[in-house]
Amino acid sequence: MTQDELFKKLVAHCKEYGFIFPSSEIYDGLGAVYDYGQNGVELKNNIKRYWWDSMVKLHENIVGIDAAIFMHPRTWEASGHVSAFNDPLIDNKDSKKRYRADVLIEEWIAKQDEKIEKEVEKARKRFGESFDEEKYRATSPRVAETAARRDEVHARFAEAMNANDLGGLRQIILDCEIACPISGTRNWTEVRQFNLMFSTQMGSTAEGANTIYLRPETAQGIFVNFLNVQKTGRMKLPFGIAQIGKAFRNEIVARQFIFRMREFEQMEMQFFVRPGEEMKWWNQWKETRMAWHRALGFGDDQYRFHDHEKLAHYANAATDIEYNFPFGFKEVEGIHSRTDFDLGNHQKFSGKKMQYFDPETGESYVPYVVETSIGVDRMVLQVLSAAYREEQLENGESRVVLAFPPALAPVKVAVMPLVKKDGLPDVAQRIIDQLKYDFNVVYDEKDSIGKRYRRQDAVGTPFCVTVDHQTLEDGTVTVRHRDTMQQERVAIDDLYRMVDDEVSYRKLFRKLNL
Amino acid sequence: MTQDELFKKLVAHCKEYGFIFPSSEIYDGLGAVYDYGQNGVELKNNIKRYWWDSMVKLHENIVGIDAAIFMHPRTWEASGHVSAFNDPLIDNKDSKKRYRADVLIEEWIAKQDEKIEKEVEKARKRFGESFDEEKYRATSPRVAETAARRDEVHARFAEAMNANDLGGLRQIILDCEIACPISGTRNWTEVRQFNLMFSTQMGSTAEGANTIYLRPETAQGIFVNFLNVQKTGRMKLPFGIAQIGKAFRNEIVARQFIFRMREFEQMEMQFFVRPGEEMKWWNQWKETRMAWHRALGFGDDQYRFHDHEKLAHYANAATDIEYNFPFGFKEVEGIHSRTDFDLGNHQKFSGKKMQYFDPETGESYVPYVVETSIGVDRMVLQVLSAAYREEQLENGESRVVLAFPPALAPVKVAVMPLVKKDGLPDVAQRIIDQLKYDFNVVYDEKDSIGKRYRRQDAVGTPFCVTVDHQTLEDGTVTVRHRDTMQQERVAIDDLYRMVDDEVSYRKLFRKLNL
Repeated sequence: MTQDELFKKLVAHCKEYGFIFPSSEIYDGLGAVYDYGQNGVELKNNIKRYWWDSMVKLHENIVGIDAAIFMHPRTWEASGHVSAFNDPLIDNKDSKKRYRADVLIEEWIAKQDEKIEKEVEKARKRFGESFDEEKYRATSPRVAETAARRDEVHARFAEAMNANDLGGLRQIILDCEIACPISGTRNWTEVRQFNLMFSTQMGSTAEGANTIYLRPETAQGIFVNFLNVQKTGRMKLPFGIAQIGKAFRNEIVARQFIFRMREFEQMEMQFFVRPGEEMKWWNQWKETRMAWHRALGFGDDQYRFHDHEKLAHYANAATDIEYNFPFGFKEVEGIHSRTDFDLGNHQKFSGKKMQYFDPETGESYVPYVVETSIGVDRMVLQVLSAAYREEQLENGESRVVLAFPPALAPVKVAVMPLVKKDGLPDVAQRIIDQLKYDFNVVYDEKDSIGKRYRRQDAVGTPFCVTVDHQTLEDGTVTVRHRDTMQQERVAIDDLYRMVDDEVSYRKLFRKLNL
Repeated sequence: MTQDELFKKLVAHCKEYGFIFPSSEIYDGLGAVYDYGQNGVELKNNIKRYWWDSMVKLHENIVGIDAAIFMHPRTWEASGHVSAFNDPLIDNKDSKKRYRADVLIEEWIAKQDEKIEKEVEKARKRFGESFDEEKYRATSPRVAETAARRDEVHARFAEAMNANDLGGLRQIILDCEIACPISGTRNWTEVRQFNLMFSTQMGSTAEGANTIYLRPETAQGIFVNFLNVQKTGRMKLPFGIAQIGKAFRNEIVARQFIFRMREFEQMEMQFFVRPGEEMKWWNQWKETRMAWHRALGFGDDQYRFHDHEKLAHYANAATDIEYNFPFGFKEVEGIHSRTDFDLGNHQKFSGKKMQYFDPETGESYVPYVVETSIGVDRMVLQVLSAAYREEQLENGESRVVLAFPPALAPVKVAVMPLVKKDGLPDVAQRIIDQLKYDFNVVYDEKDSIGKRYRRQDAVGTPFCVTVDHQTLEDGTVTVRHRDTMQQERVAIDDLYRMVDDEVSYRKLFRKLNL
């Protein structure tokens, strides 16, 4: 099975088992928006809780907030989003299709690379054993010409992007003779900037309605509240403010299921430090965040850092934590040293001092900021990708199992009477009553035990508890473990502790050394 | 202290102690939008958890979902929001101020009532002991005239509202000679309908951008997913779908702090039942929901039902649970029998069958729906209002205490070394390490113990734990209880159980009889 097939199966599985549905599906969906079903919402909430508790509960110097999605529009002038949060778009006049100009050029560059690799492969076949690849790449006129052209375009492209030169982007598209994949023509409009923020009108027009934006990132909600939290919470540097919430970006190219959506959720923490200490903290947060991901137990080699070469206008250091998705290593979290860019700009735009008085040095200054920023939906997709397994069983059957870390599993325990009579359902109900205050528990009495196990495997339930006739005699039940499929007899009175030991967040938290 | 003063003090307290800040305050705020601070977010999350767990964990036949804020625009045609979710607005041409026409008329009616009461009071003073109020009301020409006029306007008003007769509303305003409070003139525009949904554009215009809406209620996200959840979750009627999420309404008159905001959060549960059984379930959910509120222990008489006389177009029965806010009894939750209006309309508008096959009767039908709908922010305000107390202490000092139910308190335990030396801070830290995996714990070593108690009272922390020199000898600490202010010595090893017994949700859940 290719990675591509695997991913398609995962998407289908997510729908079939109530994890993720296309939004408004009865109306044929809404582009790049998804809804979480009955199992998806539990998984997502568990991930959010793992993050929130490890940030806020386990760090004495981090507190949470929950700022509104609506913010004063000046916020986005100060942050640079009004002027700089744009995609360069170009339309083909014949097909009326719109494209991101930068993506068209990137695709053309990738195509040159493909051409070169094809030439090299052909030569390798032609020359056989004696093939000297390095020499061939350096001397073959056809390869050298393509590479030179690619490098020239790449350099012009980087320059145009840096200078925000829209005419330059268009000229590259014309010079490279890039055609619209739909119409096949090169009849292009000018390149225009398209702001990615969703806007709306607040208030009615007569009283002077304001154009406001749906926040494109949660971070600014933290920055504008910096002084409120610092003062009312009596916080001393270094300290952090954590937030979970929705953000919105009108992406032209949204794709890969819930990896890039127009409506998405972020978990962001802004850590305020003394100027000059930001690199120390940036390095420390890299380690702390990597440990948080690896504590889930999906394999340390499935994660890697990817430092940014090109830094955003607000950053002096930035790295991504990438996970090995079925479609390759991709970002799940960013750790950015944002300097004093945001607080400094809010000071400028609001006229309010955004300074911290440092009792140790007796000075006032605008703190520097190290940010950890993670997409909740991406994290859900990461966990689903990592947990999804198709297994061949000894009896020749197969099963799909979601091997979630137990703390993240949507359902912790399924309680099943072996048969629907002899009082077994009543005993099952009493077991549920013992567990339900603390754990998500389901009852299932339909179909054979084997089929019921398959259903629970498919949603990742760590424990299946079967009540049978022996239960009536000795008060024990059969506990069947999801990953090993091992079964054991356990006294009903010991169930609570057994489940609690396994599914508690404590088990994850202890790995974090906080 | 009047109720009005009390409310003002509560609002100030919420800001001073990190519960609720005006949104984007450094930019002088954004109308009717608020941010939750470090204590507010914990309180809000605890309330959400109390609701979610009591709905989803403790009801085998209720599951959750989390649908997106963005939905297909046809959703709001089917739900009636595009055509009917309007306020009638009128502008004064001189002041350029805009008003809700219905509110102007309601205020005029209220003024007539005031006039009558003033007349009655004057007469009571005039006649003294011999005053026969009933007779006076019936016979005084001045009172009778005002009452008749009021009743006539009231009748016309009700008729115009029912018929959506905008010209009729305007005529009432002219006939009653209602003037603009700013300009004092009666120079009015026509009355126009103003839709309360926020709209935005999704996609870029060239590819045909869609006008979409920010959902004005979370309920529709449940209805459009009804079949997905029912089928993938193998749900049998009756069953419920619960959801917590943001909703948005462009209110012209937004007021009373977080009671009515333009961006707010809802906790809604839609319970799907057999047609004909909806009244039974509506009555049952009234009781279940009232018990949920009363379990918080703020006093049963602080809540009451208020059945709707005028029903919304989708309902055949509706009641509010009202709480006795400082500004009077107001709705915190609605329980509505929504019939098959929503599912039926989605069936009509989407062309997809929204039916349930009933294995017991062998029939397929569109289920009826009973909804419980609660505003999270209102619930936060309700809990804050109920918990806020100013108390005179025996030593002549006073304290402000937030007497939250312990499960809802933002911070559960404050650990304090008596002095900052002799190893006491280290012991405090070890106690925190024992508790922090399960409870929100803070450390405080600054100022006198008395001051530290006051700070914790002000944010509602149930337990203050003081480490002193005796702790070093016998391993006990002083535990001080928030409400009684009683102190007792407790062994460090017994702290966990003591806290857990008190702050666990189990304590609340057990009162619900679920």
